[in-house]
Amino acid sequence: MKSKVNNKLKGLGSEIEEQIDKKLNPNISIPIRTLSNIIYDKSTGQLTLGDKVSKRYFFNVAHAKKFMQTMMVASFCNDLIGQNIHASIRDMFYNLKRTLPETSENTFDVQSESDPIIIDLEVALDIFREQLHLTTDRKGIVAGNVIIKDRGDSIDWSKLGSGGWSIPSTVEEIEFSKVNADFVLVVEKNAGFERLHEDKFWQKHNCILIGTGGQPSRGTRLLIQRLNREYKLPVYVFTDSDAYGWYIYSVIKSGSMSLAHISDRIATPSAKFIGLTISDIFEYELKKCIIKARELDIKRAKELLNYEWFKRPEWQKEINLMIKKGIKAEIEALSHRGLKFMSETYLPEKLKKKAFLP
Amino acid sequence: MKSKVNNKLKGLGSEIEEQIDKKLNPNISIPIRTLSNIIYDKSTGQLTLGDKVSKRYFFNVAHAKKFMQTMMVASFCNDLIGQNIHASIRDMFYNLKRTLPETSENTFDVQSESDPIIIDLEVALDIFREQLHLTTDRKGIVAGNVIIKDRGDSIDWSKLGSGGWSIPSTVEEIEFSKVNADFVLVVEKNAGFERLHEDKFWQKHNCILIGTGGQPSRGTRLLIQRLNREYKLPVYVFTDSDAYGWYIYSVIKSGSMSLAHISDRIATPSAKFIGLTISDIFEYELKKCIIKARELDIKRAKELLNYEWFKRPEWQKEINLMIKKGIKAEIEALSHRGLKFMSETYLPEKLKKKAFLP
Repeated sequence: MKSKVNNKLKGLGSEIEEQIDKKLNPNISIPIRTLSNIIYDKSTGQLTLGDKVSKRYFFNVAHAKKFMQTMMVASFCNDLIGQNIHASIRDMFYNLKRTLPETSENTFDVQSESDPIIIDLEVALDIFREQLHLTTDRKGIVAGNVIIKDRGDSIDWSKLGSGGWSIPSTVEEIEFSKVNADFVLVVEKNAGFERLHEDKFWQKHNCILIGTGGQPSRGTRLLIQRLNREYKLPVYVFTDSDAYGWYIYSVIKSGSMSLAHISDRIATPSAKFIGLTISDIFEYELKKCIIKARELDIKRAKELLNYEWFKRPEWQKEINLMIKKGIKAEIEALSHRGLKFMSETYLPEKLKKKAFLP
Repeated sequence: MKSKVNNKLKGLGSEIEEQIDKKLNPNISIPIRTLSNIIYDKSTGQLTLGDKVSKRYFFNVAHAKKFMQTMMVASFCNDLIGQNIHASIRDMFYNLKRTLPETSENTFDVQSESDPIIIDLEVALDIFREQLHLTTDRKGIVAGNVIIKDRGDSIDWSKLGSGGWSIPSTVEEIEFSKVNADFVLVVEKNAGFERLHEDKFWQKHNCILIGTGGQPSRGTRLLIQRLNREYKLPVYVFTDSDAYGWYIYSVIKSGSMSLAHISDRIATPSAKFIGLTISDIFEYELKKCIIKARELDIKRAKELLNYEWFKRPEWQKEINLMIKKGIKAEIEALSHRGLKFMSETYLPEKLKKKAFLP
């Protein structure tokens, strides 16, 4: 894997070298990432990039600086991989920021110049940031009957007490030594993770429990996808019953606009939604815990209605119910029925009935 | 410990019972937490509560509801401890929210009614939230030569690969089986944690590495204090060179206004500041990475000048330098000198010279 990425970076360099040898204007082709080139692929259920491409030339006053920046970032990442170390994108920015000799021109002035270059390389070379050894902010915890190998350590996710394993930003390099689970349960909230973890839910139901702490980090999304793809584990997502929670589900399942170029490496199209639905509020007698939806909630919900992957009748019904009644509810509302209601009644019932939304 | 807290809760109940038996107006005494009763204790270096107290009566139209709420929360926590389970404060709110029979009056309408009751109980009974089995949001990661026991698992912080151990919200109950370290290094940023962790800093310098991911969670602050108090480990805090970073240091060292009532259980007055200072920017040739301070940064810095624990000359010099020059810098700026500069040059030099701020 590592050498494949290295080869792609070196290929980029050789190509430029050849162009120079042939006295051509050195250039790089980069797929366009604006909305006009983002499409929803029904067959894979993912957002993905179309085939529009732009070219970045060295001998072009409008392109020259960006061309140089692209080469600098590619070279930096090549070094990272060569030395086998990782860096954050901010580390990279500071490392590359300097003044060109005998000018007052900086290589990069602000980080918002270097960040998009990384995405350029991701799409141009069909690799992704983690493979370039650039780290993303970490978030997310996991527990379950799984043993992994990571940086020479053998880590048993079932023996980490109340803490769980903190999912690092790069999970590309971890190896699974043992995966003993029937499914993956992804919980939006840390508090939900803690309650389920304490009630030994993953042990009783033989699953892998992942807490995302809000919108999942790239590392967490990659981990979910790896477990799904490599071990064929069904993935069930458990969020609040509101537009924000449903959007989290949608991002896990289908990717996001801003990362459409790597959807196939980060999304899990077969993921299913286990709850909370608006119907659950009535089915499980949670009416006392209803929260009145704000204007923004309704606006977001109306937007979701138009997402391709929410056009299924089950979702249209739920989202419209939310809009009509102007209500939402949180995972913690289940505590109204008792603190163990979630782990001993609600989730087991949903799993038994296979009451999932698509 | 558990029975001590249980006894305090039961004591509260018995006291009310006695008052009822004596036909007195049942009441609870609660120390006042407003600014007028928060003092900085120079001898301990902590923010703490003074001795002003208010009384909450049952037979008082203005107090009756709050009195009932206090009893409900106390009883809920008593159950949690009895059943040995934990809940988030939001779980508690939903659990206790109901309508009083034959009225339209709710026990609690919004969570902002139940949250302060928890603090009331903390101060009234001199215990703290974690001991009442109420969880706080988790954040923070740790790695080092330490083995702990937690919920029956033995967890080796030195063998968790790139992930580290995710610090749970309650660290009261973990047991240390082995602590082999000379000091604790607390890093404000996850990216900094990852770089140091990858460079095996904690191994090379025999320390415990803690990443707080911004303002540290209660669990993380408690863990820092336990390592300092129980194992006499010096604590060094490493943050960005700006008012926000320095405030993080201040919170770890001296506690915060909003948690003044538990400073002695959560603060680590002997903690020292290892960097980044404004002087470091010049000493370590990071001028290329200076960020211009915004108006808000300067305003915050001016506020810090008046904090008791920043009145030491070393801090006054640094803060004034920041204000005068109108600059700040981030931990990641060290990457300008090379990605391993932080772990191989900057921190080792600071440690060797004991170049800490008080």
